Amino acid sequence: MLEHTVTAWMSRRRWLAAAALSSLLVACAPMPGSTPASAADPLPSWNAGPNKQRIVDFVRAVSTEGSKDFVPVADRVAVFDNDGTLWLEYPMYTQVRFVLDRIKDIAPQHPEWKDKEPFKSVIAGDIKGAMASGEKGLFEMLLAAQSGMNTEQFMELVRQWDAVTRDPRFKRPYTELSYQPMQEVLRYMRANGFKTYIVSGGTVEFMRAFALKVYGIPPEQVIGSRQKLAYEVKASGPEVMLLPQLDVNNDKAGKPTSIEAHIGKRPIAAFGNSDGDYQMLQWTSTAKGQRLSMIVHHDDAAREFAYDRESSIGRLALGLDNAKANGWQVISMKNDWKIIFQPAE
Amino acid sequence: MLEHTVTAWMSRRRWLAAAALSSLLVACAPMPGSTPASAADPLPSWNAGPNKQRIVDFVRAVSTEGSKDFVPVADRVAVFDNDGTLWLEYPMYTQVRFVLDRIKDIAPQHPEWKDKEPFKSVIAGDIKGAMASGEKGLFEMLLAAQSGMNTEQFMELVRQWDAVTRDPRFKRPYTELSYQPMQEVLRYMRANGFKTYIVSGGTVEFMRAFALKVYGIPPEQVIGSRQKLAYEVKASGPEVMLLPQLDVNNDKAGKPTSIEAHIGKRPIAAFGNSDGDYQMLQWTSTAKGQRLSMIVHHDDAAREFAYDRESSIGRLALGLDNAKANGWQVISMKNDWKIIFQPAE
Repeated sequence: MLEHTVTAWMSRRRWLAAAALSSLLVACAPMPGSTPASAADPLPSWNAGPNKQRIVDFVRAVSTEGSKDFVPVADRVAVFDNDGTLWLEYPMYTQVRFVLDRIKDIAPQHPEWKDKEPFKSVIAGDIKGAMASGEKGLFEMLLAAQSGMNTEQFMELVRQWDAVTRDPRFKRPYTELSYQPMQEVLRYMRANGFKTYIVSGGTVEFMRAFALKVYGIPPEQVIGSRQKLAYEVKASGPEVMLLPQLDVNNDKAGKPTSIEAHIGKRPIAAFGNSDGDYQMLQWTSTAKGQRLSMIVHHDDAAREFAYDRESSIGRLALGLDNAKANGWQVISMKNDWKIIFQPAE
Repeated sequence: MLEHTVTAWMSRRRWLAAAALSSLLVACAPMPGSTPASAADPLPSWNAGPNKQRIVDFVRAVSTEGSKDFVPVADRVAVFDNDGTLWLEYPMYTQVRFVLDRIKDIAPQHPEWKDKEPFKSVIAGDIKGAMASGEKGLFEMLLAAQSGMNTEQFMELVRQWDAVTRDPRFKRPYTELSYQPMQEVLRYMRANGFKTYIVSGGTVEFMRAFALKVYGIPPEQVIGSRQKLAYEVKASGPEVMLLPQLDVNNDKAGKPTSIEAHIGKRPIAAFGNSDGDYQMLQWTSTAKGQRLSMIVHHDDAAREFAYDRESSIGRLALGLDNAKANGWQVISMKNDWKIIFQPAE
């Protein structure tokens, strides 16, 4: 219920891609040092077709010494949006669900919220009422929910929350709702010398709380939106605290600048699903040499969801209009993917 | 001449650690994949003594499986200040020299600078006059010298400048003036599974221009001060532009927060030389387990320079006062190091 109301809310207010996120814990999540995907078929959850073939051809071309498209290992950088690209984002970004749950959890310690929007409405379960506070109020909630503690404490909170929270439709923890075909792409690329990065709108510490476990991606390869941090020396020792101020909103043109700031290399492969990823796909595909830019299209209402141009969550219009002209591939979840999620154990 | 005037200027104005930097191109600079230092003596440029022994004991303790101090490879993070720790910083931070040289180079394209401080004074070689503009004026120069171009173009400029610029005392390019004993520490740690990061006050792109060549450190492991960036789509394609705005000043308490933002792991070893590194050394040494925090002390006027408490460049007072109580080691360049620089070819 809450979820659908918030979805409606989202359709009117496209706030913070920062507040966009989700997670999962696939049983066979790739860990560093795990065995590379089968040489016979590195992408077993993909149906045969031009998109699967394109991924395989690209990886072979850039990793085969002597190939005219060969790229040295140090430059094999692949970037992946998270929400809607690596895991579920619909009908509510997972990090928004976390923020709303936490606002309700800590409301007793904030008696002042009883009379203060948007907190007052969220506590009462009246999301429409909260809408009146607009984008400003939503930022305020995220920052209230995610500050006043150090980064370790915050990540522990996220993990505890994930352990007891279930997605309303699939009845599974968010960390079990990553896309199995994309897990295979991550592993296949790493097995061929790629360094895989998350470049998403979620805040960095939220994603780091599960990125290694779910995707095999270590903290230093997670790029996201950022809160300001403060170094504080307490009696028990120094801590790095999360402040209630947004520093970087990692969306749209903010993605290529975050990539340059963090990595200092131009990616050779990029995967996204919404127009928030447009500039990242563009930055990747317009460099010289063979480059791969792909869009995950949510066209599978039966197994997941179908949404694109009219959706406020993961809105995709510009990407669909220009993919062909830009040389990008549009992945159909319905036609290209044999399964969406790893089956529950 | 210019150098000494600016040094005096610096002693009165401790501006921007961001403007603190330098570089070098040691003939045997470690490249990724190079042979690890000799097993017989991984630190041949170090004299025997407690400091050399401490480094070796630490590396063995954390990298020996079964040791009570064992640390998994993924957590073997070592951070190094650059100016005065890995390379020369005295009597003028290398990046300051670069900025002043560039202001003079581009002055003809900025007729408005003829009447505008601090540019007017710098162009006239009158550094004292420039001082009147204070810290604000110095920031203004750095940002004027380093903006209006994309990050690739800027790094190319730095490389071209280095190729034709010589340090006034040692008559060598700055990229040849890194400390050979520290080069050995970098290689020794990497050969034992460490990931080595630069965490310095210089701006990121300035350091990336030479970090791989000089230190074997790739762009994604360079953490520094930052200018704001902008993604701009031009007729020739998209570019990431350097803006004339400072985003992060990577000094003092800014170092641990930058480390957390970028790496998301607490380092287990840290090397610095000034009080600008104090919090980074503290953040490293106060974690549980065996940790290494070391200070390079410039006490060798004959072979390099002697400066500490009273110097505006690389001022070191708090670090000397508290090293023992904090369990940090102070490296004497005079007594611990057999040579300072790799001999010129």
